Amino acid sequence: MRFNVVGLGCSALDYLGVVPRWPRLDEKIEMLNFTRQGGGPVATALVTLSRLGSSTSYIGKVGDDEAGKFILKEFEKEGVDTSGVVIEKGASSLFAFCVAEKNTGKRTIFWRRGTCSELDPKELNKQLILSAEFLHLDGHEIKAAIQAAKWAKREKIKIVLDPDVNPPEMEELIRLTDVLIVPSNFARDFTKEENYSKAAEKFFAFGPEVVVITLGEKGCLCKSNKGVFTRPAFKVKVVDTTGAGDVFHGAFIYGLLRGWDLEKTAEFSNAVSALKCMELGGRAGIPTLKQVEEFLASCVQNKGPSGLHRFK
Amino acid sequence: MRFNVVGLGCSALDYLGVVPRWPRLDEKIEMLNFTRQGGGPVATALVTLSRLGSSTSYIGKVGDDEAGKFILKEFEKEGVDTSGVVIEKGASSLFAFCVAEKNTGKRTIFWRRGTCSELDPKELNKQLILSAEFLHLDGHEIKAAIQAAKWAKREKIKIVLDPDVNPPEMEELIRLTDVLIVPSNFARDFTKEENYSKAAEKFFAFGPEVVVITLGEKGCLCKSNKGVFTRPAFKVKVVDTTGAGDVFHGAFIYGLLRGWDLEKTAEFSNAVSALKCMELGGRAGIPTLKQVEEFLASCVQNKGPSGLHRFK
Repeated sequence: MRFNVVGLGCSALDYLGVVPRWPRLDEKIEMLNFTRQGGGPVATALVTLSRLGSSTSYIGKVGDDEAGKFILKEFEKEGVDTSGVVIEKGASSLFAFCVAEKNTGKRTIFWRRGTCSELDPKELNKQLILSAEFLHLDGHEIKAAIQAAKWAKREKIKIVLDPDVNPPEMEELIRLTDVLIVPSNFARDFTKEENYSKAAEKFFAFGPEVVVITLGEKGCLCKSNKGVFTRPAFKVKVVDTTGAGDVFHGAFIYGLLRGWDLEKTAEFSNAVSALKCMELGGRAGIPTLKQVEEFLASCVQNKGPSGLHRFK
Repeated sequence: MRFNVVGLGCSALDYLGVVPRWPRLDEKIEMLNFTRQGGGPVATALVTLSRLGSSTSYIGKVGDDEAGKFILKEFEKEGVDTSGVVIEKGASSLFAFCVAEKNTGKRTIFWRRGTCSELDPKELNKQLILSAEFLHLDGHEIKAAIQAAKWAKREKIKIVLDPDVNPPEMEELIRLTDVLIVPSNFARDFTKEENYSKAAEKFFAFGPEVVVITLGEKGCLCKSNKGVFTRPAFKVKVVDTTGAGDVFHGAFIYGLLRGWDLEKTAEFSNAVSALKCMELGGRAGIPTLKQVEEFLASCVQNKGPSGLHRFK
């Protein structure tokens, strides 16, 4: 079987709650809303691609605990193939408790490492990886990720990287990457540059053909051999920003699969990410292609003289 | 079947984590330790009694979700009878996420109401309630609690109350109560008294034969027709105070079942509560009778000139 996108990275179980305000230590506070959803950078990007209509397969390690079972069930429900998943007996999966503040949508994440061992390159299904048009990585399971990237490189499969962590091998992985999409704080920490254009230049020098820095409510900055441009974010009523970056990655890969230019791809990715933020959790708000198209059409109608899109 | 203690109240599933420090909004913080345990004031008091060697039965409503199943399994494991539990189809159980700060043991609780309907007095097993020597209530399921208290009163079954909530019917329930044990903040809010001796007097005037106010790290204050006395808390290395009050109630009922005087009962309850605080969660640290006896014996040996017990 062939897939548009194969992703290798970490999977998590996210518990998500909304509180009226951020509490002090030693308080009891009632949550206004509560849900649980699968999470993880590559994992949620694949769910995004799947909702948009692409075929996807997830590779990673999960425990055989209740959380692991929940994570696999969510993939199944979303149509993400899990034939490359390694289930570790007696191990627990990564768990996160994300609490969002009602009025700002800003969230604090309490997380707990799982007890799964690291994914060994020997546990990889090479055939599965080479079946993809795109390989998506998040820097977790770094040894396996580098092995997979090397195989993909030789076969000219495009490699997209979302560096969620920063192990010593990160530079090696960036050098293997075709499309590098990083959050602003990673850009600052890794390049020691406060100016995002300059940070993008530095990443570009490592070899990727496209570098994107995501800027949260400010949108994104893209760098390619054609130069640098920025795209503002869409203004929406934010409920929760959990997973906004993961979803942006999925949408960006979707644009590349469709052969769109970078401007259209960036605009589309901003839209998908904005729609996600209108619901609690990393995945509940991920739109279908039809929903994105309707959103974009409505934004064109409402485009004000400032050039900023507004959506109610 | 007859039970030493039948309890009627709320059950919860507690997720418990430890963080190195209390985070700001919009941070990601790794938990140092994580566990999940059953919770709820009466529920945890019954587990305490069961570990100490008394026979107990829990009455309450739980959902048939994963949390509800976990709650029932924990009761089973602890030897708490659940023949009076009503399981509601399609409903979710109360859920709490308790985060304790490493150095202080102080915790913040994010909680979410379950979707179970209120327990109806018609759903009560009267026979089961009248089989008990003590009936323990926490103010949840207030209509059923008042009905149960009225039945118990007529048969001279002793009623112990831990007011965890404050519905309009609370005064009626306090008037039916024999042993009222309240946390300090409830004492202040209910009586509008800052002086705990005076607050205890006010509660005593409603009819209970014993009134206890728990004072956290300061121990407890007891009032009966013989007068008022206080008992200092034991100094221990606190990991988490979640459930310290619930456990105190269970231990206090144990002392009354044994026919101990109030001084010995208060001392014993302080000891059980202190031991609980040395582990994460409301239940993990609840000691057996032998462990309490060993702790108390070691404290007598270490008793300094200040009269304060120390335990390492």
